[in-house]
Amino acid sequence: MFHQRISTDLAAEIWSTVKRSGCLAEDVKSFVVHDLGRMRDRLQNLQSVFPRQSRHTLAIKANPLVEILRVAVGCGVGLEAASIEEVELAVAAGCPAEQIIFDSPAKTRDEIQHCLKLGVHLNVDNFDELERIGSLYQTVASASTVGLRINPEVGVGTIAITSVGGTGSKFGVSVSKDHDRILDAFVKYDWLVGLHAHVGSQGCALDLLCRSAARLQQLRREIVEHTGRRIPLVNIGGGLPAAYDDAIEPPSPSLYAEQLAIHAPDLMGDEVTLMTEFGRAVQAGCGVAFSRVEYVRRQSQRVVGDLTDSDHSMAVIHLGADMFLRPVYRPDDWKHEYALLDASGLLKTQDSRQTTIAGPLCFAGDILTREALMPEPRVGDWIVIRDCGAYTLSMWSRHCSRGLPPVVGYDASNQSVSLLHRGETPEDVVRFWSR
Amino acid sequence: MFHQRISTDLAAEIWSTVKRSGCLAEDVKSFVVHDLGRMRDRLQNLQSVFPRQSRHTLAIKANPLVEILRVAVGCGVGLEAASIEEVELAVAAGCPAEQIIFDSPAKTRDEIQHCLKLGVHLNVDNFDELERIGSLYQTVASASTVGLRINPEVGVGTIAITSVGGTGSKFGVSVSKDHDRILDAFVKYDWLVGLHAHVGSQGCALDLLCRSAARLQQLRREIVEHTGRRIPLVNIGGGLPAAYDDAIEPPSPSLYAEQLAIHAPDLMGDEVTLMTEFGRAVQAGCGVAFSRVEYVRRQSQRVVGDLTDSDHSMAVIHLGADMFLRPVYRPDDWKHEYALLDASGLLKTQDSRQTTIAGPLCFAGDILTREALMPEPRVGDWIVIRDCGAYTLSMWSRHCSRGLPPVVGYDASNQSVSLLHRGETPEDVVRFWSR
Repeated sequence: MFHQRISTDLAAEIWSTVKRSGCLAEDVKSFVVHDLGRMRDRLQNLQSVFPRQSRHTLAIKANPLVEILRVAVGCGVGLEAASIEEVELAVAAGCPAEQIIFDSPAKTRDEIQHCLKLGVHLNVDNFDELERIGSLYQTVASASTVGLRINPEVGVGTIAITSVGGTGSKFGVSVSKDHDRILDAFVKYDWLVGLHAHVGSQGCALDLLCRSAARLQQLRREIVEHTGRRIPLVNIGGGLPAAYDDAIEPPSPSLYAEQLAIHAPDLMGDEVTLMTEFGRAVQAGCGVAFSRVEYVRRQSQRVVGDLTDSDHSMAVIHLGADMFLRPVYRPDDWKHEYALLDASGLLKTQDSRQTTIAGPLCFAGDILTREALMPEPRVGDWIVIRDCGAYTLSMWSRHCSRGLPPVVGYDASNQSVSLLHRGETPEDVVRFWSR
Repeated sequence: MFHQRISTDLAAEIWSTVKRSGCLAEDVKSFVVHDLGRMRDRLQNLQSVFPRQSRHTLAIKANPLVEILRVAVGCGVGLEAASIEEVELAVAAGCPAEQIIFDSPAKTRDEIQHCLKLGVHLNVDNFDELERIGSLYQTVASASTVGLRINPEVGVGTIAITSVGGTGSKFGVSVSKDHDRILDAFVKYDWLVGLHAHVGSQGCALDLLCRSAARLQQLRREIVEHTGRRIPLVNIGGGLPAAYDDAIEPPSPSLYAEQLAIHAPDLMGDEVTLMTEFGRAVQAGCGVAFSRVEYVRRQSQRVVGDLTDSDHSMAVIHLGADMFLRPVYRPDDWKHEYALLDASGLLKTQDSRQTTIAGPLCFAGDILTREALMPEPRVGDWIVIRDCGAYTLSMWSRHCSRGLPPVVGYDASNQSVSLLHRGETPEDVVRFWSR
């Protein structure tokens, strides 16, 4: 049930609820809805299947809207920050410092000092950074705990560009090559109390995640034995895939917890506080985007690879490579499913055929897909883009300087609707590019 | 001379001038410099090689900083807007409405109405949009001129994703299939006074651009004959490639003008006001970015395709897939050249070898290049990224929510330095993601 997606029927219902609520302008061109009830359920599921003392954090970079982060914090979940800006987002969302994790691979001295003062947990990426923290820790009264990021070298998933566990990765110290230096570091720095590994998310099998956890377990045992110290914090990162179509059911957190109990039982035991940093698995399925069809082009032919297909429709909509950067630039790796509503919000299902969906950017490659299965679109219809609650809006690109669409929170339990972001006006964008 | 790039020596000099000027914080992590003198020279070159009555516009999407647009306007150049937000950017930069071109393929009724009121020139993408304008033109007192975007169907360049001249493109009406409808439209709408074509930029040869212009010329003759009207505006779009390395000298505007005079002489004559929309060719070579090397990772091995290379350095810097989206996501199509300065700004040139440059994002694929040729980088050195004045900052992505770097204007003629954008603080980013 964890990965249950927003069905096309529910999407149509959400569209109507939001439009009826009056929280958006009548002539809104596109908007995004985040299902906050679903997100809460998923976070509670995480909290229930892992040991009680676990510290779960949500990866801010998956979806950085302050109002969404605030809901996560309200569930007792911490926040994982990939930049100093994201640390400030966590603070703005009301997250207690000790529940913030700072994970950037490019932390500056100033950023480290600031986080030590705040008492944020830091995961250290490399030995140089460890040394920096060592010298700063002496000058600052800090409540920060610190973990060391390990590259467990368990191999890469199917999407090389987001897989971080291969040798030669840009992240972490090598569990094999740096083995002795790791032990030495834990002897030298008594504030170093944790281990961290993250082996990528979409495209990584459960087996890969479990092998990474097993490596952490083994390394932790060696460190405990070598130093005689407790090493209480083990951070297994994120890494559960999200569901983008019904044909592939990704492993649930519950299954992940069961497998961890087999392959890395120490991490699920009383001596360890397990930390997690899920993002995509929680957030992707909570988001759904809607855009009005502004124009429909009849194409005399469509070219897909070597094939041409005559008399094909292209719907031009208001979200493109600005919000769906990866599906546009790396279409083989990243896909969404689409549906079509008529102008009154009714789901159209008759006579589906392959349709091209083009974004609004002045850029020929701004094509979301050439193979959406849907009935013939008409001007004024609405395209539904499913499972876009993670790594879509969060990666918003300024290409052609279109403003962020409004984002609405939805809760099925009481059919409530709230504005999470009003969207950007042209004036906001002018301010962005002004001195 | 048009395409002359900022040399690595000059880049080092610019770095020192900017650092000495005190316009940036002492601990700035990265910054971008735009050579305004070079940009002015290029714009003046355009103005001198094309007929005097030509109307040149600069594509805002190449670089939308208001202060940069303001300089272009000061040179008597207009601005080409790909979105309604870009129209407002043009207005904010002081551009007279009649020198603004609005080119979006997804113009809404409200946007069209707004632009008709302003008196902005519109290029119409398709017949449905033409009809919309037709009905709105009757309700608004407008000084707008309107052109029709033609797909000249001259084939695609070497980079398919940014080439728009193939059949089945998302832009324009077909010069062949829609021929009769085009003639009819010019009979029906007397405000329709121009033709427009744009066949992509980087990767398009001069031959392609000239064949497109020749098609426009031929079509214009037919329309003039068919309607008996003057068709004064012919917009040849942008499309000149920029220089990203010294081995390939792209065609100059001067050569382009010479070739146009041969292949499309009407467009260079007295009866036509030629319009252009250059962006990349003008702007790319005016920009240079600098980032401090925050960490250096020694890699036991580096994997490039099937090859592995042992004992390799990776410099972790403060600009990545947020600013260099295309080089990261489509590295085969988009490349920059790099250089290395020491901490005091001196160019390092001894013992160059292939080096990996990694961005700061928590994303394994955030690698700018694996083959920058430079000496061994050290922490505190500065990486120079060349030719990044177009389609880099303008495509800024929020991935990991890092703030925009400061941007400085430079003018070699008087060694002057001015702040074009102060960069974003973490507070700015929090505001961006807040309700």
